[in-house]
Amino acid sequence: MAKQPIFDAVTLPDALPLDSGEVLDNVQVAFETYGDLNADKSNAILLCHALTGDQFVASEHPVTGKPGWWERMVGPGKPIDTDRFHVICANVIGSCMGSTGPASNGPDGTPYAMRFPVLTIRDMVRGLTRLLDHLGIETLHAVVGGSMGGMQALSLAANFPDRAARVLAIATTARHSAQNIAFHEVGRQAIMADPNWAGGSYYDSGKTPDAGLAVARMAAHITYLSEAGLTDKFGRRLQDRAEKTFGFDADFQVESYLRYQGSGFTQRFDANSYLYITRAMDYFDLAEEHATDGAEGLLADAFAGTPARFCIISFDSDWLYPTAESRHIVHALNAAGAPVSFVELSAPFGHDSFLLDVPALDRVVKGFLHD
Amino acid sequence: MAKQPIFDAVTLPDALPLDSGEVLDNVQVAFETYGDLNADKSNAILLCHALTGDQFVASEHPVTGKPGWWERMVGPGKPIDTDRFHVICANVIGSCMGSTGPASNGPDGTPYAMRFPVLTIRDMVRGLTRLLDHLGIETLHAVVGGSMGGMQALSLAANFPDRAARVLAIATTARHSAQNIAFHEVGRQAIMADPNWAGGSYYDSGKTPDAGLAVARMAAHITYLSEAGLTDKFGRRLQDRAEKTFGFDADFQVESYLRYQGSGFTQRFDANSYLYITRAMDYFDLAEEHATDGAEGLLADAFAGTPARFCIISFDSDWLYPTAESRHIVHALNAAGAPVSFVELSAPFGHDSFLLDVPALDRVVKGFLHD
Repeated sequence: MAKQPIFDAVTLPDALPLDSGEVLDNVQVAFETYGDLNADKSNAILLCHALTGDQFVASEHPVTGKPGWWERMVGPGKPIDTDRFHVICANVIGSCMGSTGPASNGPDGTPYAMRFPVLTIRDMVRGLTRLLDHLGIETLHAVVGGSMGGMQALSLAANFPDRAARVLAIATTARHSAQNIAFHEVGRQAIMADPNWAGGSYYDSGKTPDAGLAVARMAAHITYLSEAGLTDKFGRRLQDRAEKTFGFDADFQVESYLRYQGSGFTQRFDANSYLYITRAMDYFDLAEEHATDGAEGLLADAFAGTPARFCIISFDSDWLYPTAESRHIVHALNAAGAPVSFVELSAPFGHDSFLLDVPALDRVVKGFLHD
Repeated sequence: MAKQPIFDAVTLPDALPLDSGEVLDNVQVAFETYGDLNADKSNAILLCHALTGDQFVASEHPVTGKPGWWERMVGPGKPIDTDRFHVICANVIGSCMGSTGPASNGPDGTPYAMRFPVLTIRDMVRGLTRLLDHLGIETLHAVVGGSMGGMQALSLAANFPDRAARVLAIATTARHSAQNIAFHEVGRQAIMADPNWAGGSYYDSGKTPDAGLAVARMAAHITYLSEAGLTDKFGRRLQDRAEKTFGFDADFQVESYLRYQGSGFTQRFDANSYLYITRAMDYFDLAEEHATDGAEGLLADAFAGTPARFCIISFDSDWLYPTAESRHIVHALNAAGAPVSFVELSAPFGHDSFLLDVPALDRVVKGFLHD
C-alpha cells in the first residue's frame, strides 16, 4: 500500500465494545460528507461502502486520484441528491483509509497487525452509530449500501432500529453462503502464503504481501462480474498481439485485465485489512446473530419491531449474492410486518451492477429516497 | 510433489511435432489398461483424463493410495465394462505421472521446467494417437472423457476422425470462456507468486511452490462444485467447534475442506504441470483451430467429415462448462451432419457430477457404448 494521506476523522470519545468481547480504544472514524445538513438534522443519508470501498463516494480518491466510487449516483441533482440530502460516508473500522484498522498503532504505539481484534459487520455499524452520535444525528433519512454496504444497512436496521427511517440494501445478503466463504478463504490463503505477509507484521519491514493480495483481488474480481459480462467484454480476444505466444504472458485480454486489477489494488489497500473485512463478511449471519438459546434463528426476528421502510434491490446477473438471497430478506421483512419494496433489475454486469450504469437502479434509488 | 514411483510407459519412437512449431523428442507416455484387447483389436476404449487426473482410472493411485478416479464407472460389469472392453488411459503429456512434462529431463539431462514447450489439447491428443499406433489399435470402439478429457475426445474426433467410432464427451466445452481463462489465470498467478516457484526451476532446490499450488487448487475447486452443493454439504456449519473463534483458523467446515483439498493436491501434483495444462485448456478453441485465413472459424467445420457417432452430456448444476457449451457442440455436430445424442442430466454436484454418484449418467454411458 502506498503512503497514506491525512484523512478527515473523529476519534470516538468512548471505547467501542466488540462482538468478540474485546474492546477497542481510541477508535478513529474517517469520513466524508456531501451536501448540507438541515437545521433539524433530518436529511442525513448514511452511505455504507463495500469490502474494498471507502469514504470517497463522490470526491477524488486521495491515493489513486480516481473519481469517487459512486459519482454517478451521488451529487447535485443525482439520484442521491446532495442539493437535498446530507450524505455521510465513513471508512469502516478494520479498513485502511483513515479509520482504525490493523495498520493503526495499538496501545503500545506499534501497528496492531494481527493483534487487531476480529470484527463483525455489527461492530462496524456500532462504529458508524458512534459517528452519528458525534454528528448529533438521531435518525437518518436513510441508510444505503450495496454488497457489504447492504449488510451494514440491514445490520443497522436490525440492531439500531430507531436510527434510520429508510433502509436501502442493494446486491446483498443477510448471511454469507458456503461459496461466499470459500472464495474469501482462497483470498486469505493467498495473502497468508506470501512470505512478505510475515504473520501480518510487515508494516515496518519495507515489504508488503502485494503478490498474495493481488491474487486475492483477482479471484474476488471474477466473482464481481458475470460470465456473460466477461464474454461480452473480453471473450477470447488477444491482448495487443495477433497470435497466441505459446507462453505464459497475458495473451488474453481477460488475463491482462485481471493482472491490472490485482496490481492496482495493492497500491491502495492493506492486506491485513483485506483479511479482517473478509472475515467480518464471512461471519455475517443476521438471523444467527438474533437467535436465542443456540437455536438457528429466524431472520424475521432480527427485524421484529423495526419502524423503517425497506427497499431491497438485486440484479439478475449477480451470482455472488443472487436474487434468492434478496428474496430471503424480503420474506423475513414480510414476516416481521415491515413495509418493503423489492425489485430484481436486469443488468449484464454481475455483482458490480450496483456500481455501474444501470438507469433503472437510478430510478428506483431516487424514488425510494425522495418519496 | 512427493517422490514419484516408476510408471508403466512407452517411449514414442518418433519425435512429436507440436502446435507451437516446436518438436518434442523422446516422449514418454505412461498408461494403464483394464480388460483384454480382443483379437481384431476392435474393443478398445480410450479414456481421457481431466486437468489433474491421471491414468489410474480403476486402480489404486500409487502416490496417494486412493482408489482410481472412475472406479464407479470402469470395471467388470460396470457401465464401461472391462469384461467386454479394453480400456486404455494414458497420462497426458505435460502432466507429472510418468508422461513427459516440465518435470522430465530435457535433452541436456536436467528438468525442462519452463523450457518445456507450451502444449495444446491437440498436442496431447497427438501423443495419445501415437500410443494407439504403438498398441496397434487403428480404430477405437470409443473415446471417452469428462471436462478436459471431453476436450480431448472432441479434439480426437476433429483431428483424427478415423480413429474413433464413438465419441462420448461429458461436462465439457469446445472452447474456454473468458471466465474459464480468468480462473486459470488466478491459479497460475498464485503459483508464480510463490517464491519457491523460482521461475519454475525448483526441482533441485528442495523447495516446491506448495503454498501457491494449494491456493490455485482451492480456487479451482470452488468452480468444480455448485453453490447449492456447497450449501448442502457445508452451509455455514462450524468445524469441530461450538462457536466462532474470532480468529483466522478454519472456523467453517468449508474452509477446512478447501485447505485440505489444497494441501492434499500438492502431494501428488507438479506445479509446473498445473501451469502447462491450464494453459493448454485456455488455448483450446476447436473452431478457431479449424478456421482458415484468419477467419473466426465455425465449430461445424471442425467436425466436417467425421464418421463417428457422438454423445454429449452436460449437468444442470455445472457452471464451469454449463449446458449452453454442450448445446453449442451439439448444434455444430448437427450442422456437420454427424449423428449425436445429447442429454442434460440433473445432478447437484456441479462440474464434478461426472465423477460422482449420478445413476442416470451410468445408464447413458452404458447405453451409448454398448449399442
